[in-house]
Amino acid sequence: MTKHLNKDTQVCMSLAARPSNFGTRFHNYLYDALDLDYLYKAFTTKDIKAAIGGVRALGIRGCAISMPFKEDVIPLVDEMDASAKAIDSVNTIVNTDGYLKAYNTDYLAIAQLLAQYAVSPEHVFALRGSGGMAKAVACALKDAGFKQGYIVAKNEKTGQQLASLYGYEWRPDMQGVEADVLINATPIGMSGGADADTLAFSEDEIDRAKVIFDVVALPSETPMIRYAKSQGKTVISGAEVFAIQAVEQFVLYTGIRPDHELFLDAAKYARG
Amino acid sequence: MTKHLNKDTQVCMSLAARPSNFGTRFHNYLYDALDLDYLYKAFTTKDIKAAIGGVRALGIRGCAISMPFKEDVIPLVDEMDASAKAIDSVNTIVNTDGYLKAYNTDYLAIAQLLAQYAVSPEHVFALRGSGGMAKAVACALKDAGFKQGYIVAKNEKTGQQLASLYGYEWRPDMQGVEADVLINATPIGMSGGADADTLAFSEDEIDRAKVIFDVVALPSETPMIRYAKSQGKTVISGAEVFAIQAVEQFVLYTGIRPDHELFLDAAKYARG
Repeated sequence: MTKHLNKDTQVCMSLAARPSNFGTRFHNYLYDALDLDYLYKAFTTKDIKAAIGGVRALGIRGCAISMPFKEDVIPLVDEMDASAKAIDSVNTIVNTDGYLKAYNTDYLAIAQLLAQYAVSPEHVFALRGSGGMAKAVACALKDAGFKQGYIVAKNEKTGQQLASLYGYEWRPDMQGVEADVLINATPIGMSGGADADTLAFSEDEIDRAKVIFDVVALPSETPMIRYAKSQGKTVISGAEVFAIQAVEQFVLYTGIRPDHELFLDAAKYARG
Repeated sequence: MTKHLNKDTQVCMSLAARPSNFGTRFHNYLYDALDLDYLYKAFTTKDIKAAIGGVRALGIRGCAISMPFKEDVIPLVDEMDASAKAIDSVNTIVNTDGYLKAYNTDYLAIAQLLAQYAVSPEHVFALRGSGGMAKAVACALKDAGFKQGYIVAKNEKTGQQLASLYGYEWRPDMQGVEADVLINATPIGMSGGADADTLAFSEDEIDRAKVIFDVVALPSETPMIRYAKSQGKTVISGAEVFAIQAVEQFVLYTGIRPDHELFLDAAKYARG
């Protein structure tokens, strides 16, 4: 039913190369439950500059930014919040009368989950990836007190940069790396992608680890998460990251924080 | 209820300096009635170029164009349909995979209404205005066979141009003009505007005329329409123009023509 929509309905949206249904279902579920005159819609684009120009010109209230646009949008906004500035990566834009302020709610969600699962900072970690999400993870690990870890990235330049920024080591692959905490911050295992059926870390590597953390949110059980669960490992999924960061976006867009029970209902509906 | 919305929901919208609720209510009512996975939302903008860039980049399926953007968008589209080219005025943009084609469904609606009300082309008309909507009216009058008429416009340049284009006479005001058909194609009488309480033609002029035609759609009864009705004149309202042109837009966006009864229901709901 859309016939209640009107000229004053606030619009929020997302931009991703491969949009999922999670954000659209999550936010709209909450709008309905809280009786807010908002709507949410996922979009994709081949022209990020024109898309953000459209967000500004059309007065779109909020825009979630997913891969591969998290760094591309930096020169397109008016202000970077500390959460986005610290990691040079944006996942949320709030538009107030044409003034665009950028945030990163992924960082916040990852920090919350490391605390919630009591992942010990004494563990050695291996973080695969060196893009926007990897930056958010590395920054959260550093802020949580992790002393030793590896940035595992084929791209030497971005991998080295990220590792040296936080005092960790760069490796092009897992050769010789022993880690208790394995974190995937690449699209490996994402449904619809080239590596949808691939494990982000090998079965051997997972067997030797204690905590497996995947930032890929779709499917909610990636091949890596499924295998790690079957081996009785502690797993943290991208679906959890996505739900927590989404509620932080919801607060930024609407000024309203849904209570925990409603949040769980919305996340369950959104996954379904 | 927006929780059914998903990443594949098609989006249509409108751009106007002063958006009304009509289009949003009209289209969404039909989407619901016909169970179409679409949503419609009115927007305004201060940057028409960026807004149309956004329509293209976000894959917005259709965009209605209202005052004052009907001519501004011409250089921003890829192709002009004959309906828009004839009058250098666009009220509809259809986006097919990033290719923008512009139409003018106002022209079609005005032509339909002149025929439906059997307005005789032997009458002399006075048409106030020389903007995009005035062009659509003048072209429809010419095509309906009207031989004698006046373009009444303060702006000598655009008034003269429009008059000479169709072989009518330009006048800066109604001084000395006698007309059976009075048509307002300016914002005079539009709610929220500077001239909301003003009659587009004087009571005397209306008294001496037979048919009063207002293109202002909001309110559905402008001061001119209300006075003309009270004097027993034949009246054609902007609400009628707007409803007919909206259904033509609906067909362009969805490929589906609602039957007449459903159209009337939607128009009634939209006015409501």
